[in-house]
Amino acid sequence: MKVQSQIRQGAYSSDAFIRKYQRLVSDTVLPYQYAVLNDKAEGAEKSHVVQNFINAGKAVRGEDTGDGFYGMVFQDSDAAKWIEAAAYSLRNFPDPVLEKQVDDLVDIIAAAQDEDGYLDTYFIIKDKDKRWTNLLEAHELYCAGHMIEAACAYYEACGKRKLLDVMMKNAEHIYKVFIENNHGGFPGHPEIELALMKMYRLTGNEKCLSLAEYFINTRGTDTDFYKRECEARSWKVWGCDPGNGEYQQSNIPLRKAERAKGHAVRAVYLYTGMADLAAETCDSELFEACKRLWDSITKRQMYITGGIGSTVHGEAFSTDYDLPSDTAYAETCASIGLMFFASRMLENEVNGEYSDVMEQAFYNTVLAGMQLDGKRFFYVNPLEVVPGISGVAPTHRHDLTQRPGWYACACCPPNAARLISSFGKYAYGENENTIFCHLYAAGTVCFENGMKLVCETDYPYGFTVRYKVSGSGCLAVRIPGWSSSYSLTVNGSSFTGAPEKGYVYIKTDGDSEIVLTLDDTPRFVYASPKIPRLTGYAAVCRGPLVYCFEGADNDGDVLQLGLDTEGSISTAEEPELLCGTVRLGVPAFRTAQTDGLYTAQRPAYTACTAYAVPYYTWGNRGENQMRVWLPVRK
Amino acid sequence: MKVQSQIRQGAYSSDAFIRKYQRLVSDTVLPYQYAVLNDKAEGAEKSHVVQNFINAGKAVRGEDTGDGFYGMVFQDSDAAKWIEAAAYSLRNFPDPVLEKQVDDLVDIIAAAQDEDGYLDTYFIIKDKDKRWTNLLEAHELYCAGHMIEAACAYYEACGKRKLLDVMMKNAEHIYKVFIENNHGGFPGHPEIELALMKMYRLTGNEKCLSLAEYFINTRGTDTDFYKRECEARSWKVWGCDPGNGEYQQSNIPLRKAERAKGHAVRAVYLYTGMADLAAETCDSELFEACKRLWDSITKRQMYITGGIGSTVHGEAFSTDYDLPSDTAYAETCASIGLMFFASRMLENEVNGEYSDVMEQAFYNTVLAGMQLDGKRFFYVNPLEVVPGISGVAPTHRHDLTQRPGWYACACCPPNAARLISSFGKYAYGENENTIFCHLYAAGTVCFENGMKLVCETDYPYGFTVRYKVSGSGCLAVRIPGWSSSYSLTVNGSSFTGAPEKGYVYIKTDGDSEIVLTLDDTPRFVYASPKIPRLTGYAAVCRGPLVYCFEGADNDGDVLQLGLDTEGSISTAEEPELLCGTVRLGVPAFRTAQTDGLYTAQRPAYTACTAYAVPYYTWGNRGENQMRVWLPVRK
Repeated sequence: MKVQSQIRQGAYSSDAFIRKYQRLVSDTVLPYQYAVLNDKAEGAEKSHVVQNFINAGKAVRGEDTGDGFYGMVFQDSDAAKWIEAAAYSLRNFPDPVLEKQVDDLVDIIAAAQDEDGYLDTYFIIKDKDKRWTNLLEAHELYCAGHMIEAACAYYEACGKRKLLDVMMKNAEHIYKVFIENNHGGFPGHPEIELALMKMYRLTGNEKCLSLAEYFINTRGTDTDFYKRECEARSWKVWGCDPGNGEYQQSNIPLRKAERAKGHAVRAVYLYTGMADLAAETCDSELFEACKRLWDSITKRQMYITGGIGSTVHGEAFSTDYDLPSDTAYAETCASIGLMFFASRMLENEVNGEYSDVMEQAFYNTVLAGMQLDGKRFFYVNPLEVVPGISGVAPTHRHDLTQRPGWYACACCPPNAARLISSFGKYAYGENENTIFCHLYAAGTVCFENGMKLVCETDYPYGFTVRYKVSGSGCLAVRIPGWSSSYSLTVNGSSFTGAPEKGYVYIKTDGDSEIVLTLDDTPRFVYASPKIPRLTGYAAVCRGPLVYCFEGADNDGDVLQLGLDTEGSISTAEEPELLCGTVRLGVPAFRTAQTDGLYTAQRPAYTACTAYAVPYYTWGNRGENQMRVWLPVRK
Repeated sequence: MKVQSQIRQGAYSSDAFIRKYQRLVSDTVLPYQYAVLNDKAEGAEKSHVVQNFINAGKAVRGEDTGDGFYGMVFQDSDAAKWIEAAAYSLRNFPDPVLEKQVDDLVDIIAAAQDEDGYLDTYFIIKDKDKRWTNLLEAHELYCAGHMIEAACAYYEACGKRKLLDVMMKNAEHIYKVFIENNHGGFPGHPEIELALMKMYRLTGNEKCLSLAEYFINTRGTDTDFYKRECEARSWKVWGCDPGNGEYQQSNIPLRKAERAKGHAVRAVYLYTGMADLAAETCDSELFEACKRLWDSITKRQMYITGGIGSTVHGEAFSTDYDLPSDTAYAETCASIGLMFFASRMLENEVNGEYSDVMEQAFYNTVLAGMQLDGKRFFYVNPLEVVPGISGVAPTHRHDLTQRPGWYACACCPPNAARLISSFGKYAYGENENTIFCHLYAAGTVCFENGMKLVCETDYPYGFTVRYKVSGSGCLAVRIPGWSSSYSLTVNGSSFTGAPEKGYVYIKTDGDSEIVLTLDDTPRFVYASPKIPRLTGYAAVCRGPLVYCFEGADNDGDVLQLGLDTEGSISTAEEPELLCGTVRLGVPAFRTAQTDGLYTAQRPAYTACTAYAVPYYTWGNRGENQMRVWLPVRK
């Protein structure tokens, strides 16, 4: 069944919590990133992104390329992600200055496209003859994918098709290379698959669908492709091992995959494309593979924060149940990709499992990736930091205690920007006669099926969600897995229909008011005893928010704290704290410091209240200890 | 004060627990290692150690060197450690066959020595001109050190001085190079310092003392030495970073060192030499540095098992309190080196702190390094293994669930053999009028000061230690820090003298019988809350033995277990289990398995008895889960 639960064209605007973040993106993140792309941001590492396109344009025209190419082989994608984020933002907040910036950049990009449709500044500037000779490392298809996403988003946002035409031409070129000329192979870093599916849906161009199908169906069937490719070329980017098929998800036909492995971002981008294709073509075999991969991630390899890819080695999935808090990798981009994957699973099957995870990843890891002021970013999202060990010990070097600024490999900040700006796409969906409320987000949504919805809520801090629906059809409202109880009224009367796979379906005709009230009780959460690192520990959550304990709220030391899970947790609204939050008071015990490393003396401890703040706010008050999981003392 | 607490020449024999291990070394370990050295052990990796010496002999005589050199640059040291272990073993169990093997090998080694006294097969065979050009990597001084130790041990054991003469000549050569010819620099891998101190004590040759003093006093003062050396040579072994002074303890003058850092084995070998020199020359400044380094290790960086060097990255010390159980490195050789260091600290100051740690390292990490049958060995000694994660996850690859056989880098097995065979050297000490009982070991000891001691005990499983002392003087008996109470009688009367720094001093004249009874109660042990990875956890110990929980005793799963520390632990003698042990029954709870990764449902648990076996016996019953630390549920 084709569910089409994601909104694609519908207008969406929001306010309250999400709106604040979208404002931050438009007012702070996008201008800063624009300055970075143009090498005008003070203190940021040199980017050269725009200059690369300018220089590529010169190369195309046969002119001198000036200072040539600079940066990572995938540097172009920074421009693409910025345009995509800007496009979504323009839909949230029309802004002629920003629109002009996009238009100018699109002109520069268009001028850099080669006659045959090829577009990648690295190769256009450096060496035309090396095109398509290093799919393993060179990110040509990855960059194309991001620019395709940008083109679709900008066309949807502003109706301008210049970039879309450029990327259609580019897609035609890629089609020619891979389908007509039978080049062989598939991208080292998946991304183009999901992008082609977007463009296919937007334009109806069958070549996009065929190409996506080709990349997905070929991957892992020709397991020696990268080895042959590597032997045939005399150059390299980093010298990646062509035999490491697990890392790049190329060691097994995707339809046969049982377990999510390898580089986590590559994996979830790929699985997103697979789920897209499965939904579009009603390919149940492919969807079954997606479900196995989904389970492999969410039932055996995911942090409570929705973080995935637990090991720094290859930024990758580790083994099942290996989920260390302190040495976690849990890249922001991987959780963003997990949201993509979840949203596409919803296209195949409306099931609260997917929306629950989408929400879990968003409110915890994705938001934690960004400083509350929008100026600094985490790539790596540990669930525990201890100054003196985190960022210092050889096994903890990647787990920083504070968000750094812009990185040379600038994947996460623009990725977070485009995700936050397009939150509505994940929150709502529709098909012919049903509108889907996957996530709770205040705002007004107009659907293509003619229905309209106004949502009012203070979520994730308020637990009442009020929907005013107009039009005739069905409203599907998710009941989150974390809410142990809920109440639902339709025009003031209690609605008693039972949820199906996490959603209640309410028929409406004319104007209706639907009020959902979720459980606002903070709760202790326990991990499976199969996770060695979490035995005997518990975390604290409220609604979709995972909480954490920071030194700043707890006399500078959270390692001494143990939970009293027999007590109950209090809440306190703190409008001035961390841009406005609800702090939790958790019954706990504080262990006294002991002499020496080990003692047979039972440690003395005193009852106390431990204070917890939402995980997404951690690290905003200077370097201090932070823990999501605390030992249960009682 | 020069304490001279280590016995050097005195005869020593033991029985019971230690004797069994010494038998294992003589009957299994040494013959197997001898076969390996001669490339006659089935299934073992090629060693070529003896052949290297044979080929070097040919080179010295100007003959064709046949198949040349094979193996690690420090391959010679395998022969040295084997001879040293064989020497100690011959003192325990005279054995003409073994003695003949040693004599034959000594002949081969002697024939490989160059005219000028130089002896290192790698350079003699491969390239004479590269001698002393790569102190950073080439292990020439390390190999010399081990062979000096072997020479001293064999002379002490059998009175044969051929190897001693060879190594005296070698030491004279090194003296010429470094002192007379002012070559500069110090060994990349310390070891020769402690060896030179041994040879100085045995022979009285002042050049040995000067050379040890030179290496210790120079190290870390000329911090650019390795960089200059690296620039001056055109070859490398592995390409070690000459600027990584922390790794090789060369970034700070040793007298100024505050913290144990870098490669753990190198560090403790070096600190052993420092403590040796401090004792010998009454150098209080150097001893103060040793004390700081001792505290840095034992008060902030040591596992409960006496394991040190917690990180696989550089086999090194990490930051303070970073002591992960599952990703531990804790190399067997590092704990052996820690015993060396402790024994030399006792030469400076008789203090139970040192003997406690010596015992802790021996009965736990060192013994755990060897399979109970003496045939397989751990280099890495984790305090937790979970099949499916340990040895598999990228961060856990080094933490194996089962002991492998012989390694290409064969440092730990022969090191364990020489340590076990010379246990008496660590157990007993003496000076003019006092004999010191640092460790409890059954057997008869004749001291140079004329006193004689017969010790009867079933330690570490029996807690009564009976000493029959003859001769006139003082007996210093250690009261271990772990024993919360003890009783002591002298000829049947209670002895009431208070311990000084962990030792009671008993004057004896003629024949006395002294009976020490220690606390045999199993105990829960708690870690400092400064160790993040152990908060809320406890371990179980009895006497010097740290216990662990294995799947084999606990229905295959120990991750579900939590301790009831309010209950008391039972003991059961198990003569058939794990070569004879005492198993502990620990009050505990077993948590039920849950669905999914995380749940707000408080996990159900049932009271049970968890069974623990000594850590040194783990991994002897096939692959299964193992944990030293369990969460405290009550």
